[in-house]
Amino acid sequence: MPAPLPAHVPATMRAAVLHAPKDLRIEERPVPVPGPGQVLVRVEAVGICGSDVHYYEHGRIGDFVVRAPMVLGHEPGGTVAALGPGACLHRPGQLVSLEPGIPCGTCTQCRHGRYNLCPDVSFYATPPVDGALCEYVVIDEHFAHPVPDALTAETAALLEPLSVGVWAARKGRVGTGSRVLVTGAGPIGLVAVQTARAFGATEVVVTDIAPERLALARELGATDTVDVRTARLADTGYVPDVLLECSGVPAVADEAIRAVGRAGRAVLVGMGGDTVPLPLAHVQNFEIEVTGTFRYANTWPAAIALAASGDVRLDRLVSHRYGLEQAEQALTAAARDRTTIKPLVCPLPG
Amino acid sequence: MPAPLPAHVPATMRAAVLHAPKDLRIEERPVPVPGPGQVLVRVEAVGICGSDVHYYEHGRIGDFVVRAPMVLGHEPGGTVAALGPGACLHRPGQLVSLEPGIPCGTCTQCRHGRYNLCPDVSFYATPPVDGALCEYVVIDEHFAHPVPDALTAETAALLEPLSVGVWAARKGRVGTGSRVLVTGAGPIGLVAVQTARAFGATEVVVTDIAPERLALARELGATDTVDVRTARLADTGYVPDVLLECSGVPAVADEAIRAVGRAGRAVLVGMGGDTVPLPLAHVQNFEIEVTGTFRYANTWPAAIALAASGDVRLDRLVSHRYGLEQAEQALTAAARDRTTIKPLVCPLPG
Amino acid sequence: MPAPLPAHVPATMRAAVLHAPKDLRIEERPVPVPGPGQVLVRVEAVGICGSDVHYYEHGRIGDFVVRAPMVLGHEPGGTVAALGPGACLHRPGQLVSLEPGIPCGTCTQCRHGRYNLCPDVSFYATPPVDGALCEYVVIDEHFAHPVPDALTAETAALLEPLSVGVWAARKGRVGTGSRVLVTGAGPIGLVAVQTARAFGATEVVVTDIAPERLALARELGATDTVDVRTARLADTGYVPDVLLECSGVPAVADEAIRAVGRAGRAVLVGMGGDTVPLPLAHVQNFEIEVTGTFRYANTWPAAIALAASGDVRLDRLVSHRYGLEQAEQALTAAARDRTTIKPLVCPLPG
Amino acid sequence: MPAPLPAHVPATMRAAVLHAPKDLRIEERPVPVPGPGQVLVRVEAVGICGSDVHYYEHGRIGDFVVRAPMVLGHEPGGTVAALGPGACLHRPGQLVSLEPGIPCGTCTQCRHGRYNLCPDVSFYATPPVDGALCEYVVIDEHFAHPVPDALTAETAALLEPLSVGVWAARKGRVGTGSRVLVTGAGPIGLVAVQTARAFGATEVVVTDIAPERLALARELGATDTVDVRTARLADTGYVPDVLLECSGVPAVADEAIRAVGRAGRAVLVGMGGDTVPLPLAHVQNFEIEVTGTFRYANTWPAAIALAASGDVRLDRLVSHRYGLEQAEQALTAAARDRTTIKPLVCPLPG
Repeated sequence: MPAPLPAHVPATMRAAVLHAPKDLRIEERPVPVPGPGQVLVRVEAVGICGSDVHYYEHGRIGDFVVRAPMVLGHEPGGTVAALGPGACLHRPGQLVSLEPGIPCGTCTQCRHGRYNLCPDVSFYATPPVDGALCEYVVIDEHFAHPVPDALTAETAALLEPLSVGVWAARKGRVGTGSRVLVTGAGPIGLVAVQTARAFGATEVVVTDIAPERLALARELGATDTVDVRTARLADTGYVPDVLLECSGVPAVADEAIRAVGRAGRAVLVGMGGDTVPLPLAHVQNFEIEVTGTFRYANTWPAAIALAASGDVRLDRLVSHRYGLEQAEQALTAAARDRTTIKPLVCPLPG
Repeated sequence: MPAPLPAHVPATMRAAVLHAPKDLRIEERPVPVPGPGQVLVRVEAVGICGSDVHYYEHGRIGDFVVRAPMVLGHEPGGTVAALGPGACLHRPGQLVSLEPGIPCGTCTQCRHGRYNLCPDVSFYATPPVDGALCEYVVIDEHFAHPVPDALTAETAALLEPLSVGVWAARKGRVGTGSRVLVTGAGPIGLVAVQTARAFGATEVVVTDIAPERLALARELGATDTVDVRTARLADTGYVPDVLLECSGVPAVADEAIRAVGRAGRAVLVGMGGDTVPLPLAHVQNFEIEVTGTFRYANTWPAAIALAASGDVRLDRLVSHRYGLEQAEQALTAAARDRTTIKPLVCPLPG
Repeated sequence: MPAPLPAHVPATMRAAVLHAPKDLRIEERPVPVPGPGQVLVRVEAVGICGSDVHYYEHGRIGDFVVRAPMVLGHEPGGTVAALGPGACLHRPGQLVSLEPGIPCGTCTQCRHGRYNLCPDVSFYATPPVDGALCEYVVIDEHFAHPVPDALTAETAALLEPLSVGVWAARKGRVGTGSRVLVTGAGPIGLVAVQTARAFGATEVVVTDIAPERLALARELGATDTVDVRTARLADTGYVPDVLLECSGVPAVADEAIRAVGRAGRAVLVGMGGDTVPLPLAHVQNFEIEVTGTFRYANTWPAAIALAASGDVRLDRLVSHRYGLEQAEQALTAAARDRTTIKPLVCPLPG
Repeated sequence: MPAPLPAHVPATMRAAVLHAPKDLRIEERPVPVPGPGQVLVRVEAVGICGSDVHYYEHGRIGDFVVRAPMVLGHEPGGTVAALGPGACLHRPGQLVSLEPGIPCGTCTQCRHGRYNLCPDVSFYATPPVDGALCEYVVIDEHFAHPVPDALTAETAALLEPLSVGVWAARKGRVGTGSRVLVTGAGPIGLVAVQTARAFGATEVVVTDIAPERLALARELGATDTVDVRTARLADTGYVPDVLLECSGVPAVADEAIRAVGRAGRAVLVGMGGDTVPLPLAHVQNFEIEVTGTFRYANTWPAAIALAASGDVRLDRLVSHRYGLEQAEQALTAAARDRTTIKPLVCPLPG
């Protein structure tokens, strides 16, 4: 029998539950009880990700189909509210950033440290697992990362997208003196720019079709930008060591890979399209390494370091804030307004 | 003034010179004189490569155009005939295998050990550099690799294509217990099979459309083969760790990449087609690393070890032998006869 | 309540229990019941390791002290006798080799794939965890590795010491063409020799002071041996790429490291002595990488491949066989007789 | 016959020539003439390194003995004064930092990109090669690195010691979030601290016995310091991921290695003592990688990036400046005054 929850934790909570495409309901649900080695976390901020929007609009992403009502949201920050049996890493009240996928820990991928590729991972807001657009969640204590005072619940939430950038920069082996190309200046492109600079890149060129986003990219560290509505990347003569492809547009990826220099790396982060045309002779003659990213592994310590030092400014990505009751507005914000970078939902009442 | 050549070296020699597509002439040329640090090598066997055939047929490969008469051939084995000033690594009479590309040694790529990517490499039979389909060549002594008694001039010649296989297997990180897929059972596919086995692969599945080649693949170590005229790779359920793509057919590459397992590597060795369709979701979800190979670097020691130990049987690849006067027949053999694996030209008169 | 065990499994079993130094008792104990995700394994062969002998003689290894009676033995092979709740990887009767350390799966080390460094690992026959010198053990199903028909329970048991060799060879990056030095031709040195050869080493020189062991090393693939009672390694002029130090003698390690060539690796496998004198100028001038090994991670698939292919001959290491009642004789065999390589205990009655 | 030098280049120059221990003479020598692919550089600043001091005091370093008069100095910055035949990378007047070792470019080490280990390297001020404590030097144009306007001749000179720090940090794989220990706060320790921070280390603890140097370390980015005259490192409980050992004191190295955490790296940069006592059990149980550094390879681009961005402050290391006539004072400054960090010699008259 589990220990009773502290008195200040209510028995029920509100949650934003997706029932079908464009059918999101705010429902009352029981507050979950932390099991052995788990903690209960009071959710204070949740970033809205493109995948949340995609599930909201289409009810599926590829083979992942929402067949039963599911809570959305996988970028939560909050405070520890209670400890499950045996949990000992945190104290109640600790501000934490939640890494939203719990791998099995014993399969071949996990045993090699590639736990993001665990076929049995349980990941927030990936069917059939409920996400964090609600007031309380439980999580394995090892995946609730304590954050220093320099961070807030909001920036703690945004360590998840930052982790995507850290993972991409690692895959691309960005380092001191690197020349980097980031294609696409959406939320992921903008963390990629900052991560690349923080990893030591001396040049980071960003392409996009939205001048506002390119301006923000420059503010956040891009050394040059190319508005590809009016200019061609190839005409710039830029030869990056590393491509971080964040647009998800196959033709953009193709052109960008052709720009990469000898022994360079092309990391495909953006999703979109069944295939990307790979320029074979260029990949061979220059021995370019092309890979894709799937979530991240072991990125939180680095992400925390980057956010805490101020080298990465996550607050600058937050464009709008919503209460839990307005979750649907948060999910549709990007479609309404191209200045939206990252909407946040703050589930708890004042 | 260079030292005079030994008396046994003639003043002139025969060479197979390409003047234009399908215009190959046997000509008399001066025997070259080894410069400082170079050796003069008496060529005893030269493998015919697909690129030789391509130059013969089309007069160009991509941007590399034969604008002036050029000697073909870049897979030579032979014996040291004379030493240039300061050369001290070999003695006359030493059997050597020639690594046919001499990099600059000082550029960024060279200084990082990626000398195959040196933009200033001088490579046999790549315009405008003469190749080795002739009786004597000169080469930097460091690129004339001495071979042990277990090898002959013929197998010494074939260390060049074996190097392609070694390089591909290294790029794919083939090791003890690896599961490998080799698509295409031509000369490179067949060295790839053997290299993969010698590197410790426990399973090597080979696909092709020619039953004779698949039979030879099995003889040389393939644990299974798929005749893709009558069966589909996907139906086998085979999940390789490493793909060594040696067919050069984009559709084959696409299907094969889709078979690769989590954290696997896909090495594109075969040339052909402007682009290969890269299956984006698969590359991302499984974080597959895709790369191409361009020649090789630092492969001769490993290739010599594999050939000398008998783990790789290069002799089994030799399907036909020709004299230098028959060089044109050697270049057209593959087109006439699909059982041709590797034609060899032996320039010296009996 | 756990499922009852199959009828053929007895309620109690015999176990070799260490109570104090040189106080080993054969006791009757309950057969353990497999928990969720575990399997019960009938132990058919257990290798005796130097660490078992050390616990038997001294009751401790460094900070690990036997404070309560403990079953010895951590190199077991056997067959699956029963499945715990949810276990699904094996069928009863499957021959398995047991990887004897179960890591926590969630700590920093585990999440990076370095599970051998998990501070919370539970390892057979390391206090206070009972080992496998008994008739039945339970283990997480992922750590019971199924072995092919080419192996027996005895060779399955010896995959554990082979894993030590595989891990050392990986740390040393032994590959095709490597020149290797193995110091010490005990059980680990002899698996190191075989592993190095199987990984492609062309030269493997072995040093020891026992001619019988050097003879066995040559039989198992050493290309040369040095009896260091009568000859000095330095006098041979041998310059290895990789040192696999298996003697545990500091002076041997010092001399051997001084032999390693530029950019070489020195892997310290043997235990003994508080410090090894590291030759600083040599390590710096040649930028030698020195490291030690602690158990192994992710080695069983490779070890199985090597044993199943016959590239490594584990049977050749078995020098003596004992019943469980004779466990004490097995533990003292090495001290009595220097021809002892690897004693095996076969717990089950005929 | 070489091209004549420009009119502004004099025929002779002054040089600081070591004849015997403590016998340094300022002599008139011919200005060297740049050969093919070389440039002539007017030396404007030369850092004095501990090895210069050691040659001055002892006439040798280990096996390197000054047998004939030799110009000291291997940390030069200056401007290109003339181009040798074929040199095309720079224009006269370009400010350059000289990488003082020219490798052979063709040996095994060079071909693997480890050109710092080239046995045939020609390195300034290593017998019998003359160094740069003079007014003009020649160098291969590829090893004269152009520096941006943010740098001066003085900081260009100090890219050489910075390269030592970059190389050490790379060997130690310092990255975002690393915890680093630097033992010894001399010139190399102080570049190591800054490099570690610039590579993303969140904690850099420095030990030394000189409070002034520890204060400077803190100013340059150390997050904590330990004065080991009055405190013990072990008592701090600090567990670094990476040790950069810059003291050259064997007992310091021993204690520091014992502090390194699981899977950590210990990089031995400091020279001194024949052997360092390696704590075997710790190195094994934690699988620590220990290595030494010998000069550097491919570090200038990163060093330039770090100095140009201001992430590393090289100017802060310059403690004293001398004219060429005062070279002997520069060489003895450190012995006279412990506040000396890095003396610079500026050979050219005002």
